[in-house]
Amino acid sequence: MSGRDTMAARFQQVRNQTVALTATLSAEDQCLQSMPDASPTKWHLAHTSWFFEAMLLRPLEAGYKAYDDRFLYLFNSYYEALGPRHPRPQRGLLSRPGVHEVLAYRQHVDRAMQAFIAQADNEAWATAAPLITLGINHEQQHQELMLTDILHAFWNNPLLPAVWPTSSESALPGTGTDPSASGRVPVQPLQWMSAPEQIVEIGHAPGAQGSFAFDNESPRHRRLLPAHAMANRLVTCGEYAQFVSDGGYARPEFWLSEGWAAVQANGWQAPAYWLAPGDPRAPSTLWQLFSLNGVRPLPHDEPVSQLSYFEAAAYADWAGARLPTEFEWEAASANPASDQMTGHVWQWTRSSYDAYPGFRAQRGAVGEYNGKFMVGQMVLRGGSVATPVGHTRPSYRNFFPPAARWQFSGLRLARDE
Amino acid sequence: MSGRDTMAARFQQVRNQTVALTATLSAEDQCLQSMPDASPTKWHLAHTSWFFEAMLLRPLEAGYKAYDDRFLYLFNSYYEALGPRHPRPQRGLLSRPGVHEVLAYRQHVDRAMQAFIAQADNEAWATAAPLITLGINHEQQHQELMLTDILHAFWNNPLLPAVWPTSSESALPGTGTDPSASGRVPVQPLQWMSAPEQIVEIGHAPGAQGSFAFDNESPRHRRLLPAHAMANRLVTCGEYAQFVSDGGYARPEFWLSEGWAAVQANGWQAPAYWLAPGDPRAPSTLWQLFSLNGVRPLPHDEPVSQLSYFEAAAYADWAGARLPTEFEWEAASANPASDQMTGHVWQWTRSSYDAYPGFRAQRGAVGEYNGKFMVGQMVLRGGSVATPVGHTRPSYRNFFPPAARWQFSGLRLARDE
Amino acid sequence: MSGRDTMAARFQQVRNQTVALTATLSAEDQCLQSMPDASPTKWHLAHTSWFFEAMLLRPLEAGYKAYDDRFLYLFNSYYEALGPRHPRPQRGLLSRPGVHEVLAYRQHVDRAMQAFIAQADNEAWATAAPLITLGINHEQQHQELMLTDILHAFWNNPLLPAVWPTSSESALPGTGTDPSASGRVPVQPLQWMSAPEQIVEIGHAPGAQGSFAFDNESPRHRRLLPAHAMANRLVTCGEYAQFVSDGGYARPEFWLSEGWAAVQANGWQAPAYWLAPGDPRAPSTLWQLFSLNGVRPLPHDEPVSQLSYFEAAAYADWAGARLPTEFEWEAASANPASDQMTGHVWQWTRSSYDAYPGFRAQRGAVGEYNGKFMVGQMVLRGGSVATPVGHTRPSYRNFFPPAARWQFSGLRLARDE
Amino acid sequence: MSGRDTMAARFQQVRNQTVALTATLSAEDQCLQSMPDASPTKWHLAHTSWFFEAMLLRPLEAGYKAYDDRFLYLFNSYYEALGPRHPRPQRGLLSRPGVHEVLAYRQHVDRAMQAFIAQADNEAWATAAPLITLGINHEQQHQELMLTDILHAFWNNPLLPAVWPTSSESALPGTGTDPSASGRVPVQPLQWMSAPEQIVEIGHAPGAQGSFAFDNESPRHRRLLPAHAMANRLVTCGEYAQFVSDGGYARPEFWLSEGWAAVQANGWQAPAYWLAPGDPRAPSTLWQLFSLNGVRPLPHDEPVSQLSYFEAAAYADWAGARLPTEFEWEAASANPASDQMTGHVWQWTRSSYDAYPGFRAQRGAVGEYNGKFMVGQMVLRGGSVATPVGHTRPSYRNFFPPAARWQFSGLRLARDE
Repeated sequence: MSGRDTMAARFQQVRNQTVALTATLSAEDQCLQSMPDASPTKWHLAHTSWFFEAMLLRPLEAGYKAYDDRFLYLFNSYYEALGPRHPRPQRGLLSRPGVHEVLAYRQHVDRAMQAFIAQADNEAWATAAPLITLGINHEQQHQELMLTDILHAFWNNPLLPAVWPTSSESALPGTGTDPSASGRVPVQPLQWMSAPEQIVEIGHAPGAQGSFAFDNESPRHRRLLPAHAMANRLVTCGEYAQFVSDGGYARPEFWLSEGWAAVQANGWQAPAYWLAPGDPRAPSTLWQLFSLNGVRPLPHDEPVSQLSYFEAAAYADWAGARLPTEFEWEAASANPASDQMTGHVWQWTRSSYDAYPGFRAQRGAVGEYNGKFMVGQMVLRGGSVATPVGHTRPSYRNFFPPAARWQFSGLRLARDE
Repeated sequence: MSGRDTMAARFQQVRNQTVALTATLSAEDQCLQSMPDASPTKWHLAHTSWFFEAMLLRPLEAGYKAYDDRFLYLFNSYYEALGPRHPRPQRGLLSRPGVHEVLAYRQHVDRAMQAFIAQADNEAWATAAPLITLGINHEQQHQELMLTDILHAFWNNPLLPAVWPTSSESALPGTGTDPSASGRVPVQPLQWMSAPEQIVEIGHAPGAQGSFAFDNESPRHRRLLPAHAMANRLVTCGEYAQFVSDGGYARPEFWLSEGWAAVQANGWQAPAYWLAPGDPRAPSTLWQLFSLNGVRPLPHDEPVSQLSYFEAAAYADWAGARLPTEFEWEAASANPASDQMTGHVWQWTRSSYDAYPGFRAQRGAVGEYNGKFMVGQMVLRGGSVATPVGHTRPSYRNFFPPAARWQFSGLRLARDE
Repeated sequence: MSGRDTMAARFQQVRNQTVALTATLSAEDQCLQSMPDASPTKWHLAHTSWFFEAMLLRPLEAGYKAYDDRFLYLFNSYYEALGPRHPRPQRGLLSRPGVHEVLAYRQHVDRAMQAFIAQADNEAWATAAPLITLGINHEQQHQELMLTDILHAFWNNPLLPAVWPTSSESALPGTGTDPSASGRVPVQPLQWMSAPEQIVEIGHAPGAQGSFAFDNESPRHRRLLPAHAMANRLVTCGEYAQFVSDGGYARPEFWLSEGWAAVQANGWQAPAYWLAPGDPRAPSTLWQLFSLNGVRPLPHDEPVSQLSYFEAAAYADWAGARLPTEFEWEAASANPASDQMTGHVWQWTRSSYDAYPGFRAQRGAVGEYNGKFMVGQMVLRGGSVATPVGHTRPSYRNFFPPAARWQFSGLRLARDE
Repeated sequence: MSGRDTMAARFQQVRNQTVALTATLSAEDQCLQSMPDASPTKWHLAHTSWFFEAMLLRPLEAGYKAYDDRFLYLFNSYYEALGPRHPRPQRGLLSRPGVHEVLAYRQHVDRAMQAFIAQADNEAWATAAPLITLGINHEQQHQELMLTDILHAFWNNPLLPAVWPTSSESALPGTGTDPSASGRVPVQPLQWMSAPEQIVEIGHAPGAQGSFAFDNESPRHRRLLPAHAMANRLVTCGEYAQFVSDGGYARPEFWLSEGWAAVQANGWQAPAYWLAPGDPRAPSTLWQLFSLNGVRPLPHDEPVSQLSYFEAAAYADWAGARLPTEFEWEAASANPASDQMTGHVWQWTRSSYDAYPGFRAQRGAVGEYNGKFMVGQMVLRGGSVATPVGHTRPSYRNFFPPAARWQFSGLRLARDE
């Protein structure tokens, strides 16, 4: 296939996958916003279309006729350069446009994109191709958020409905789940992988690892790593349960000051989505976990998930270890002994999300993609069961504020040597 | 028809009317909650069914099998005696049960109620009959709230959708709108109806006015009214617009202290749902009104609506008058010269919502219906375009906090003589 | 003495008394603001001077030279007509002007006032005399607030310092405390004083009861009272303790809805300033009371105080009674069997604070004194141990929001007959 | 002198200096708390004494008799290991103990410390000596906070009083101000100091730079710096004024997302303590600066100060540069061409405050000093006019949240090469 044909096929595959994720959700489900940080499914469906419309079709396709001019305002997420936008905490109030109209909007954009890909002149194509690739990767990021956000919404419903009822699971399009990620294999003994002080190359190597990476993975540059060791696998639910039963949530000595304040202000006693024995919503004498498949017994051998950075750091301190830096993590990804590096949970690192040396955001709307969030957030590495297959790579940098706990986020231990 | 047949027919008519009000709303619309004080349409559909289930079927019908036991928790509004309840601000997060399941729940309750009405023994019937009447009147109150709440939700959507698109209006079931309420007749000149000092009977007369009244309308008792005069009609949008253009929202001398604070904190510059000239959501060079039929030019001859008590009181002060007491209003309702007493807008009175002499709330859940709200609220009298026909009467007492402005609430002037 | 001499003496006596109340307070104490509703002692000292300056000296005394023009802004409380003002919640940040400068400001105003009283021409005097009387009564109101506000501030200090250490008490200027108010006499048995339905005169009778009353006590008018009975004395701490031990704060059936919400939101378990057995701030095995004299054993025979309206109403419901209306209270004040009508605690009535028939606020700043607060507050009648002797009268109307509990506020029971 | 004598003298000198800083403050001033992040002067006076009492005298001096046991609770700042503490936002409510009693508390601690230093046995001394040094450095940190906190409090007083009225300035004890820091010398042209990629040693070298450093400056370790350049001097008020007049506070493209939100939420239009022309508190047609000496014309040649991290980063972006990392800054401190490295303003770096490789907090209360704050804050380097002379060093790490703007905090530009 030509480059354009390949792009067209890739574009449509990802676009279709997004819609496929909504198969088990009602129109009402898709309108829910359970907190300002989460968005309705329908909003994700629309915003990912808006991205192609606002970044590409409107600027580059002279004859493009918008589906509805007001959507430019409604479905802008945070791009100041593209004008005002609907307030984020009010996304859940948009019963109109309805989900059917949003799907029509998607088809309108799909058709225009396919025509554009087929017919754009070479100059427009040269500008457009990297933007389409960016849009595809952007949409994959929202595929993951669609899952984490609806899971959070359902967690706030006392009926605790399952996003994927067990009976329907096998019929679902894959989303990164593979047998080795199922956690049903017996957990391996934890082993420490030592690494001496060394200079390593960090970041996306142009031309390597497939052609695409986000701007925040560049420039590739050299880092000096100290001598350290890293665990060969993730921390499990069972291990984390020992921290809980050891009074971890009642002992300030393990916690960062801000984390301890969060524990007390929010009454945290276990990871998000853990149901204590006796919870009236799903009576049981054992700990249970609310997951995409609904409530199930706590899976002791699976990686612990839905942790905030504060909880990950407190666990590490309790365990006599620490979190790895994002650079240690990236270096470890080249070590064949490293297991569970992706496809299970995002792994909190102790690295604050900052620009790489030489990084400079592009001017214009595209430059707002990553750079303006480089303060107050922590880097996560890896990729989760909710991450689309093939979306991540060793240089990939995810980031969230330290109190965020509605993601598939866990940890891997490291220590100084 | 027998008393039971009459009751059965009345019950079903009101139940059906509730569902009919949702005819133009999508499932997504029916899930919206735009503020803690407003509830989703679907919640109203369910809660009005819960009322019959919790107050009547469960206590009185031994063989009754609940549709879903968890709904007792989900759809309790505020009855402490009936156990814990889903937090009010989170009603909009209940995408499940879906609207279709809620309709099935309604039918389940309807069938059980019809069977109960037909088959209950005489002793149960004696207890039940007044509760059914209460439930019917309760449901009618929620019919009005369904309209005011969805209107508020749509006001928060920048697309400003119409609850009743004009084309569909004629097909809608009536809700109190009648020709004289349309406001399209030329506005009458304001006339003052004088009343001397007098003792009047206030409150519901048992046996009169149909048999039903809420507990807060009793006991009927005597009040001494001072000499005063009352306007023969309501204040119009056109008259209120003069207050606006006279700087009414910028002149503290007309406002109660708490009202002036609300003006400043919320940036009020006109009644709720008025769109100033140039509003980007619906461009026009004139003032417009967002109504159940969507955006339309400000109807100068229609009664002003969507006022808070603070705005009503400020207007009255600006006009050199005052608001009537609820007792003056009730006395005036017997005056044939009084126009627009019901069917247009609820009319703020200067009376705080308090118990009548000799009032004592029933023990048990039913006693929580009205009595526990008797502080911090102001009484409104009359009835609005959104009030079901026949629901109100001269002794009827509606009440809202003084800052509430999402109801069909306006005013009639009074003055001391 | 001439009328002017009498006024001059009265003015100075009250002014001196205000300063005398600060005898046991340090400069730091006088700067404290423990919540937005309370003000620093120093602010009271300054604001009561501002009142004479802003209302009288500036408008009426051509040659008056202000102590500091900036004080007009700093010490305005809520008079919109007199320009902008320092935000109420930030009064505690005014370490400057220091207390010594504020005392100098007071002396400056005192001297100017004395000169004005002595020298004003008759026309100015005719205007000024009622304003001076108003200012004197205004200052007496602030004398009470100085005590309630500093007591609240000290309650927020874990050291629980005494406003009036016992040793210094006898040396203090009187503030309404008299032997009969000490509560040390054995409590009388509660008796019900019956009253038939009747028309009574309510409000200040011009010329009666001394010449002064606040505007909110007029016009005198007729009210129809229902048949009822009223308790001959106040509810005691001991009686209220029975409500506490009966689970009163855990049983929603006694509470107004908003009151129950306040109980839960604030964790109320007893009246403000009650220390439960075992409180670490003042170890004891018994209930104790934090008072102007510091911590002391709960005085079972003294009237209960520091209640919110919600608590007073809940107690009355628990006791099978109700609160009186303010009109019933005023009528009862003429009954010789009524005991403890003043000098102990303000008595919550069930009457919302509203205008009397025919009331109309004066235009201008003076009109803001009372009228603009006539919504959302409840009337208290009587007068407390902190009320200056002679300040109140049977027609006197005090008012606070229903959640306020830092005043000397208790209750007297009433019931329907 | 012996080591103990030296320590005793050093201890007393710093203790006396703390009190000397209060020379121009009234008792009322010393009680002010203008926001939760700032503390009253008096609290600083007490807490710095508490530190010696809680960390040293109580654990190590068997016969020590506390001044007041309750102070252990009142003046604990954030040490979980030492029990509960008075809530930070309520420090301003502690009028008692009064400033004179706090000074007596200080003298009590001073005497006990002097006796301990003179008499402790060698084993106790070995433990105590580093704690005393820590306490001295801790106290110096609070000396700076005393100035920044009272300045913030005075900024909230519309009278804008001067902490150091000009007339009294020369008589004040020095606090780091020296002629070269006065900013009155003409500003130098900005020059860029280039540095190639290199490995540098970062952190405190044991034995070097005097013996003391905080734990967060260790372990000394190696870092790889990228090629970069750094400005030889600080950004001035005049340069920053160009950013302001270029619309810097209205153009989102220069700002981090969270910074832009802060600009809009707080209405920032210039650095804290800048008074725009026409400000009613200090009328002028020019920009002015509120400083320790009160209001003065904006000093164009002095380093800009009172910036948040967000403002520093936005300025750098506008200027086509970036902030340095803390490692680049520390390396530059060895460059003789670097000017204004200390004694003017703290310099925001782009480095998040994190642990150095191999860092591990001590167990116990002392371990809470620095480590538990290592998230969500940014590192500042250098030292300000308010920093005690000799307190800082090149490895010194100060840290504040990115929105903090009440410190003497400015910036130095850097850029990639």
